Amino acid sequence: MTQMTDVSMSDEVATALAQGRAVVALESTIISHGMPWPRNADVAMQVEQAVRDQGAVPATIAVIEGQLCAGLTPDQVERLAKDTGVVKAASRDLGACIVKGLTAGTTVSATMRIAALAGIGVFATGGIGGVHRGDGMDVSADLTELACTDVLVVCAGVKSILDIPRTIEALETLRVPVAVYGADEFPAFYTAQSGVTAGERFDDARDIAAVWAANRAVGLGTGMLVANPIPAEHALDAREIGATIDAALAAADAQGVSGKDVTPFLLGRLNAVTEGKALGANIELVLNNARLAGRIAVAAVG
Amino acid sequence: MTQMTDVSMSDEVATALAQGRAVVALESTIISHGMPWPRNADVAMQVEQAVRDQGAVPATIAVIEGQLCAGLTPDQVERLAKDTGVVKAASRDLGACIVKGLTAGTTVSATMRIAALAGIGVFATGGIGGVHRGDGMDVSADLTELACTDVLVVCAGVKSILDIPRTIEALETLRVPVAVYGADEFPAFYTAQSGVTAGERFDDARDIAAVWAANRAVGLGTGMLVANPIPAEHALDAREIGATIDAALAAADAQGVSGKDVTPFLLGRLNAVTEGKALGANIELVLNNARLAGRIAVAAVG
Amino acid sequence: MTQMTDVSMSDEVATALAQGRAVVALESTIISHGMPWPRNADVAMQVEQAVRDQGAVPATIAVIEGQLCAGLTPDQVERLAKDTGVVKAASRDLGACIVKGLTAGTTVSATMRIAALAGIGVFATGGIGGVHRGDGMDVSADLTELACTDVLVVCAGVKSILDIPRTIEALETLRVPVAVYGADEFPAFYTAQSGVTAGERFDDARDIAAVWAANRAVGLGTGMLVANPIPAEHALDAREIGATIDAALAAADAQGVSGKDVTPFLLGRLNAVTEGKALGANIELVLNNARLAGRIAVAAVG
Ligand SMILES: [Mn+2]
Ligand SMILES: [Mn+2]
Ligand SMILES: [Mn+2]
Repeated sequence: MTQMTDVSMSDEVATALAQGRAVVALESTIISHGMPWPRNADVAMQVEQAVRDQGAVPATIAVIEGQLCAGLTPDQVERLAKDTGVVKAASRDLGACIVKGLTAGTTVSATMRIAALAGIGVFATGGIGGVHRGDGMDVSADLTELACTDVLVVCAGVKSILDIPRTIEALETLRVPVAVYGADEFPAFYTAQSGVTAGERFDDARDIAAVWAANRAVGLGTGMLVANPIPAEHALDAREIGATIDAALAAADAQGVSGKDVTPFLLGRLNAVTEGKALGANIELVLNNARLAGRIAVAAVG
Repeated sequence: MTQMTDVSMSDEVATALAQGRAVVALESTIISHGMPWPRNADVAMQVEQAVRDQGAVPATIAVIEGQLCAGLTPDQVERLAKDTGVVKAASRDLGACIVKGLTAGTTVSATMRIAALAGIGVFATGGIGGVHRGDGMDVSADLTELACTDVLVVCAGVKSILDIPRTIEALETLRVPVAVYGADEFPAFYTAQSGVTAGERFDDARDIAAVWAANRAVGLGTGMLVANPIPAEHALDAREIGATIDAALAAADAQGVSGKDVTPFLLGRLNAVTEGKALGANIELVLNNARLAGRIAVAAVG
Repeated sequence: MTQMTDVSMSDEVATALAQGRAVVALESTIISHGMPWPRNADVAMQVEQAVRDQGAVPATIAVIEGQLCAGLTPDQVERLAKDTGVVKAASRDLGACIVKGLTAGTTVSATMRIAALAGIGVFATGGIGGVHRGDGMDVSADLTELACTDVLVVCAGVKSILDIPRTIEALETLRVPVAVYGADEFPAFYTAQSGVTAGERFDDARDIAAVWAANRAVGLGTGMLVANPIPAEHALDAREIGATIDAALAAADAQGVSGKDVTPFLLGRLNAVTEGKALGANIELVLNNARLAGRIAVAAVG
């Protein structure tokens, strides 16, 4: 039997888990690759506070010098936020990060994997990966991790630059349960409306926690996705942001930007065109997800 | 460790499983969504009798007021057959059904999941889901459940409105063993001929039971598909039914029927055009599958 | 609990495993279906010797009269090499082979499955299956086996007739870690250059063994792919072999060759056009992979 890797936990996280109290995992590519310094470090602290405000303990997850970590010190957050040598790790990259002693921000798949190792069942992020627009065979490993790792992920939808209907179809094929919080329509990251109905609607975090427990008990073996629409007061104009994304995708294509460079390129572009409104909305939806994840985690242990 | 959900079993099913006797799982969307009342209730009883005639115990599977059930009372069958509030549940929907206390007919994926929880290894249905025609990225969760849940499924092929060659390809990719009973060609639901050769041919139910045991023992971790051609005397004319399906698909498209509404729309249409012959063939192939599943289940415990 | 199938091992393999010494699994379709007699038997012996030269024990894997075997006698190798009744088995075919008492060369998926049953963690082959050119929905079960069976596979890339970028994309989606040995570029079987950068570069077999152990310890549940470029002195001219493959694929299409017949047809054609240089390169890259696998296996137990 393979011995599983130890996850290095902060005292706060270790104590909460030992006592059976609510813990919420948080990802770190938003710190290392998602926002400019020093905004990224500030936001990381605000997101942790949003979890605490609901009575749960935040466990920001990352790889620090080859060590899987759940619960970071302010110094570690600053390092992720500032250091240009920080890489981006998906779940399949973790072994190489450990051996090479790398420091990495963890994507949704890697954060789910480390959360599962640490015994943390609820995780908040901004948006998950999915099926790429135009190329339906380019599919994020986030979906595969959701299909095989039993962690509940709260998001505001799939990343805005992806194909929403195809991603929803893939989640159905992969048997990943989808819940939508307080709405009938699946949200579209910067806006609440995607035009697609998908998943079961729930208006109470306690019901979501109960469904999560029931899904585990029927032996699905999957995670669960909770889609939490961005609050109306922070949502962007659907038509405007849609056109901006289309233009940014065309620009990426024209400039030959590909692979891992596409997402940062597009985010930079969206931000420039919207004069920072895209970044502001992104921060608000992450905070909103952290609050809902906190409530679900509290209900799950209650 | 998560405690698995209890499946509520009829005394007959519970006793048979406790004594190591042959049990065959049966699905219930055929009752709740597949046929009109009162034919659906009659057929459900005939299918159970077909299993009994082979010396096995039938376990019709459904969700009744949020309780997973294997082995239904006549009252429960009638409720599934008549009540318009009955939903359709795939495996990923079971958690929500439990929490909401819903009554649901179970699709192939959900029936496999509940059968696995109850310890039932053989299951008979009409046709399984697969890859949709025209949109190869729209793939039924039935295939994913077959890829990860060790239940043997006896069917007459894939649902007639799907893409047979692509579904066979997907089963190969997913490592799901396919056996064809008494024929070289993979069957096409309403007819025995699909024009596609796929899977190993077996002419004896005992050999299929032996292969099923061998597949489990090599640790595949998948289910197994047994394709059982509709008997010649009940088969429809291949060219006629093919043209009818094509026309029905075009009509669905023209009328904007989509998602979960497509299958009932098409079945209704096929039935109307064939003046009930499609429904008659459907019933005969289900009975034929129940008989073969009964023989396989008896061989498996023998 | 299902009892797993016993794998019949040679004394050498059984002793090495019992003593915790390095063992390398080898596949056998290269013997049964990959090369003409008597070259195939000679090469099988050379490949075993290449593993031994690194201090590891070779375990050639096949099914002999329905028995899963790891470590073959010279007679068994000769039988695989000469007998025209030998079939080709993927992992999902193993149950039928056992029940029917067949003798089979094992593909990458079946070899991985049997290696896992036998407790062998490192495996050398020529090229793995992947996504077919032209039809992105025709995907080899090798990729699914890599996604769910924890065996490390050393290859010289994907089979030359497949779509390399799409296969690399699928490995990323499926969360299969990819290491490239001694190069930045993912190799293209007959040549070292594919034009695609993918996976982590490692220059030391011990680092690959360490990453492999780390991947297992994070609970990925997948295998791992090590791409080992063909040595420059044995590589074919990239442009020439590319054009030859394109012509051979067109010929297969024109002559209506399909399914399992495509690979042997193409290999025969490549060989004829290159006057045996394709076969020579194939042999050299398999030997090269056996040596690297031997070093990784030694490092893994060291
Ligand atoms: Mn991708
Ligand atoms: Mn679908
Ligand atoms: Mn194929």
